[in-house]
Amino acid sequence: MKIVITGAAGFLGRKLTRALLRAEGPLAGFDRPLRELVAADLQAPPETGDPRFRGVSCDIGDPSAVAALVEGADLVFHLAAIVSADAEADFDRGMRVNLDGTRHLLEALRAGGRCPRLVFASSVAVYGGTLPDPVTDDTHLTPRTSYGTQKAVGELLVNDYSRKGYIDGRSLRLPTIVVRAGKPNLAASTFASSVIREPLAGERAVCPVAPETAMYLLSPRRVVAAFLHAAGLPAEAFGDWRSVVLPGLTVTVGEMLETLRRVAGEEVAARVRFAPDPRIQAIVAGWPARFAAERGRALGFSADADFEEILRAHMEDELGGRIG
Amino acid sequence: MKIVITGAAGFLGRKLTRALLRAEGPLAGFDRPLRELVAADLQAPPETGDPRFRGVSCDIGDPSAVAALVEGADLVFHLAAIVSADAEADFDRGMRVNLDGTRHLLEALRAGGRCPRLVFASSVAVYGGTLPDPVTDDTHLTPRTSYGTQKAVGELLVNDYSRKGYIDGRSLRLPTIVVRAGKPNLAASTFASSVIREPLAGERAVCPVAPETAMYLLSPRRVVAAFLHAAGLPAEAFGDWRSVVLPGLTVTVGEMLETLRRVAGEEVAARVRFAPDPRIQAIVAGWPARFAAERGRALGFSADADFEEILRAHMEDELGGRIG
Repeated sequence: MKIVITGAAGFLGRKLTRALLRAEGPLAGFDRPLRELVAADLQAPPETGDPRFRGVSCDIGDPSAVAALVEGADLVFHLAAIVSADAEADFDRGMRVNLDGTRHLLEALRAGGRCPRLVFASSVAVYGGTLPDPVTDDTHLTPRTSYGTQKAVGELLVNDYSRKGYIDGRSLRLPTIVVRAGKPNLAASTFASSVIREPLAGERAVCPVAPETAMYLLSPRRVVAAFLHAAGLPAEAFGDWRSVVLPGLTVTVGEMLETLRRVAGEEVAARVRFAPDPRIQAIVAGWPARFAAERGRALGFSADADFEEILRAHMEDELGGRIG
Repeated sequence: MKIVITGAAGFLGRKLTRALLRAEGPLAGFDRPLRELVAADLQAPPETGDPRFRGVSCDIGDPSAVAALVEGADLVFHLAAIVSADAEADFDRGMRVNLDGTRHLLEALRAGGRCPRLVFASSVAVYGGTLPDPVTDDTHLTPRTSYGTQKAVGELLVNDYSRKGYIDGRSLRLPTIVVRAGKPNLAASTFASSVIREPLAGERAVCPVAPETAMYLLSPRRVVAAFLHAAGLPAEAFGDWRSVVLPGLTVTVGEMLETLRRVAGEEVAARVRFAPDPRIQAIVAGWPARFAAERGRALGFSADADFEEILRAHMEDELGGRIG
């Protein structure tokens, strides 16, 4: 089978690529083994040495490039996106990539006439404003960012293209992914990774929100597992609605840092300094932290058991188990 | 002020045009009188004799035509749409007009830099599937048609463009409009007008659904009043969410026909024959018939008091009070 990943050069795209190449035999839910994995991003992801892998440069905003990309694909993971802060700062770019890009992809898959499976990385940013506690799969989508709007539009289209039989889509609403490897980015949530990642690497970090700030988290390991699980579920499991909130872990920043202290020691935990940033605090406080995610659990998706699991997964996957 | 109507040649567009030209002095919520009313549709609406009126031919799917259309507009009523059955039968046409057309309009208004007011005719077709009874403004949007999907996407975009300050939008979710003048169309709901309109005009009509079938209705008079009321409300009234379900009347088909009998007599009512059509019955049964519409009422929108009001309004507006 041919699998395509968009946004494959990103943090999650690279992890998903590795997981797909590592899997033995056919992917769960499919009967043929992986023959070709096309990893696409604006800049082609680097070669892996695996003969099934092909890294390609593709601008998701270019319909003909997208059509060529997905020709003959049996399964597409659509991760390409302009992140929240960027989509807010550059409205046109967000619309071009997050909305038009998704549209081009859906049209290309429809034109292929094979009804391929599509896993769309949506986000809990589709929710916004005054929300029930907990938020449920049935809570209405009132996004308060252009990114959230574009993801919500993507979900509606994935659903309608699936209903029409053009694709077999499933949209996953991702929690905040922690711990992200690499550098801090411009996302308001970046601190949630920094306050764990930097101290473990021997560096200082600043926490801009109060310890009692609650967040809804999922580890990179779990989200990659969710992508694979979503790909393998039969269409009937989703019935006539293709969106699902991924189960996540609700935890306060104070609990995260307490776990860091317990697992990595006082010296490491002491590298985090609280320096309240009212702007970040206000943004993060606006994010719902508790989700029922009943549908996701019923579909077999699962959250990390506790923050220690998230922390240890990061240490194993990114630090070889070492603390810097 | 300059006002633009898209879809102006349609049933509601023509009524809205007349209402705007008839109004004396500035429209409620505006301080300047109507200087120019541009009525746009694929085929230019006919001249009215009013010097402020200009009927223009405009394909809403053509971005440059749309840009020229709305240049300098202070207020736009966006009614242009491919109706439900057509958008289902011709997916590309529905996407081009209902989704891309709305997008072109929003982009043109944004490019103008004047933050004009936009009244978007959405539909209760944004709801679908298993729904609470009654449906509320907070019920999540799970449309089961491409038309409903395209309207839901339009609402999300109207909201985000408003949040960004590019436009001052408000989206009205319209009930089924009854009694429509003219001929039956391809909509599954067309019978709801036919079973009243045809008998009053001396013609026979077939009712394809059972008498106990409930529907959510609004008269043409009330919906035109709602368009004008929506245009005049200050942005603050909508706060940070721009969509609202219009209050409507929940009534069974049997009650509609009983009202016809009471008002127009036995002879007229006897012109309706029940001939169950399982396909139509199934579609209509899938439409929610009861809506709380609390937000709409709080914003000052109002439903017809009862079906007799709807019936008499039709007789006054379309039949000069006569029964054929």
